[in-house]
Amino acid sequence: MSDRDWPGGLSEENLKAVNDNMLDGLGKLAEYFGYSKVMGQLYGALLLNPTPLSLDDLAAFLRKSKANVSTNLRILENMGTVREVWVRGSRRKFYTAETDFWRILINVLSNREMRDLERALQVLEQSVEQLRRTMPQMSEENLKLAQFYVERIDSIRVLFRFAQVILNSILQQAGKFDVSEVQRVRIE
Amino acid sequence: MSDRDWPGGLSEENLKAVNDNMLDGLGKLAEYFGYSKVMGQLYGALLLNPTPLSLDDLAAFLRKSKANVSTNLRILENMGTVREVWVRGSRRKFYTAETDFWRILINVLSNREMRDLERALQVLEQSVEQLRRTMPQMSEENLKLAQFYVERIDSIRVLFRFAQVILNSILQQAGKFDVSEVQRVRIE
Repeated sequence: MSDRDWPGGLSEENLKAVNDNMLDGLGKLAEYFGYSKVMGQLYGALLLNPTPLSLDDLAAFLRKSKANVSTNLRILENMGTVREVWVRGSRRKFYTAETDFWRILINVLSNREMRDLERALQVLEQSVEQLRRTMPQMSEENLKLAQFYVERIDSIRVLFRFAQVILNSILQQAGKFDVSEVQRVRIE
Repeated sequence: MSDRDWPGGLSEENLKAVNDNMLDGLGKLAEYFGYSKVMGQLYGALLLNPTPLSLDDLAAFLRKSKANVSTNLRILENMGTVREVWVRGSRRKFYTAETDFWRILINVLSNREMRDLERALQVLEQSVEQLRRTMPQMSEENLKLAQFYVERIDSIRVLFRFAQVILNSILQQAGKFDVSEVQRVRIE
């Protein structure tokens, strides 16, 4: 069982166990997508708390330093997954989880995945361009190898472009349907 | 410029530079998806070589230990991204890159992503189940919190289910179209 400092009222063992499991699971999920474990745990702590939590609350709950929590909160805020909220009668900053998962998905896809995909495609295009530019000066043997490189690089570009089409399609259709009612996607 | 031992014939600086960039890029891509950098580099080395390479060739080229290369090759083989090939007149094992990217995508999605998604959904369902089972014994305050947990966990389940629908749709339509000609996906 957890040795965390639980926010007020969490006396039931089953609630603690579920809270633990969710935070561990979201921590792993965050790592899986290349983010930090603490980001997932912070999001989970906020998601499962009916009221906003302060930096101090979160640091105490997760037993992490305030500096660590603060850094990770800022990244979550920039991603649009955590929002700062104003709490009447307090000077401290409080945070709450964004629960519009559709918006989170759009943020993550458009900010990170699309940008990374575009960067990867650029590198591939530059490589092909570099080869094409220097081919006229190559020996026959190197020319053959260069043509082989271009073919192989082109076949990777096709796969990246496919990923781009899927992400773009999701982004374009965002908000036009209820995520919970999607039955299938049709590839055209 | 690289200090790698280049396979025979790679004398042209531009080819070396492109080879370097591709291996670095694929190494980063592999890390991005939670695999090891060496896996991406190995795949790149095989992808950009017109002939199969042996374990010794790959270890020398990447300046990694044979044990390291061997371990990562085995994972790539199990994923279906690298194939062992027989080379006439040699007793050594040789390897070549799978270039059917559609098959690679299906392998990765069906083996890893789908399994991880199913596991995550199971954890979420078990958590809800655990809460529902123990709700009758809870105090009024804890009951309210448990109901809040169930709501929040359900909203995450919707997002995971959406991801599952998309991956399932791609897998079901696999091979029915040319990846290079996909124009869009329609969400239904």
